[in-house]
Amino acid sequence: MLSKARIKFIKSLQVKKYRQQEQRFVVEGAKTVLEVLKSDYQTECLLGTEEFLRSHTQLLSGFKGEQILVNQKDMTSLGGFKTNDSALVIAKMKANDPISVERKDFVFVLDDIRDPGNLGTIIRICDWYGIEKIIASENTTELYNPKVLHSSMGSFTRVSLFYTDIGKFLSGGKHQVFGAFLDGESVHQVDWGSGGLVVVGNEAHGISGRIEKVIPRRISIPKYGGAESLNAAVATAVLCDNIRRSSI
Amino acid sequence: MLSKARIKFIKSLQVKKYRQQEQRFVVEGAKTVLEVLKSDYQTECLLGTEEFLRSHTQLLSGFKGEQILVNQKDMTSLGGFKTNDSALVIAKMKANDPISVERKDFVFVLDDIRDPGNLGTIIRICDWYGIEKIIASENTTELYNPKVLHSSMGSFTRVSLFYTDIGKFLSGGKHQVFGAFLDGESVHQVDWGSGGLVVVGNEAHGISGRIEKVIPRRISIPKYGGAESLNAAVATAVLCDNIRRSSI
Repeated sequence: MLSKARIKFIKSLQVKKYRQQEQRFVVEGAKTVLEVLKSDYQTECLLGTEEFLRSHTQLLSGFKGEQILVNQKDMTSLGGFKTNDSALVIAKMKANDPISVERKDFVFVLDDIRDPGNLGTIIRICDWYGIEKIIASENTTELYNPKVLHSSMGSFTRVSLFYTDIGKFLSGGKHQVFGAFLDGESVHQVDWGSGGLVVVGNEAHGISGRIEKVIPRRISIPKYGGAESLNAAVATAVLCDNIRRSSI
Repeated sequence: MLSKARIKFIKSLQVKKYRQQEQRFVVEGAKTVLEVLKSDYQTECLLGTEEFLRSHTQLLSGFKGEQILVNQKDMTSLGGFKTNDSALVIAKMKANDPISVERKDFVFVLDDIRDPGNLGTIIRICDWYGIEKIIASENTTELYNPKVLHSSMGSFTRVSLFYTDIGKFLSGGKHQVFGAFLDGESVHQVDWGSGGLVVVGNEAHGISGRIEKVIPRRISIPKYGGAESLNAAVATAVLCDNIRRSSI
């Protein structure tokens, strides 16, 4: 049964401060809950409607935590979704462990991405293009924000994110560093080599001055019409596509 | 001065029914208001803060409609933005005139795009890539929805949208027709020719069965990782980029 304390605990995880304190986060909706259950995230407590629990008995037979039957109305009241007719799970955050970049990796580096929808979409795009590692500046929005998780459509279980001082990280000097600017070499002509770090900047201001200094290769998505810029997630997709097609 | 009737009128334009009835819509925020004033949209009434009106005297000297000085608080209360510290303008909708597709045009055809943010982003992407014509199914979200206008970042003034029965339109047979599916020819290898219609489908269901039947060329964005799909706007950007780079 759902105790009052448990209800309070789950609701508190909508707030960043309590997520950080408890090192736990909430995942909502059938698709993403199933992805988390299949992933290497530790899960602790699963709330499911009768139909959800019945439809996934095989997967759930391996689930070690508590399973609680909840109706749709109560489920919705616990989370941030407008409606949730299936499931919700509490999972444990992963440690912010440094990511090792291999010589053949393409890794995206995010400088101050603020919009949770953008961060989630960037994770989904990287997952589509088989880019499994993202480095994010410390002021980039938090991975465990429910809007980030939702817009990543489950891809956050397959892509690693490491928050760090990206200025220091990029100065390390072991890898090629590309940065997306409005005045760089066309991505249609860039020689990407066999791996590298690709920096994408803030939605409104682009790559910050401090980070710009440590980027030797300025690249651009060629523009053919009147728009001033592309959204950061959209730009990331075009960069990923150009990187991948260069290795055909 | 702002009369009560005018306040009521402006507020009513947040609702589709009244926009349709009045054939008018509201544009908010300095950037988009300036784009509309420079475009071929007819504008009728401009509300501006003291600073906005003072900063754009030259542009506004050619403005034939009424100009009303409004403070930031009143401005914000009239529109849909959380805050608006600059301007708001009432403009006249354009007629839904058929778009003529030339042999060398690439034109996007939207099948049931529902999310206003997606439609606005698609318009912005087409504008970036110099694609000036979009055909939309009748159930695609309305162009003059404030969220569409906002996320297009002013690009709706440079891209024409025509709502029609896209099934009939595509059956016309004068142009190459490509459609984005999960199982088509890789966009990295497609021979785009010198022009054509490119169909993008609904966010959740893709291209509908009825439309699928009239699409001879199935194309796909190659996938390298685990995500199930890409967002419709993101996919549009990758398609545009592949079309444009094919003509290098």
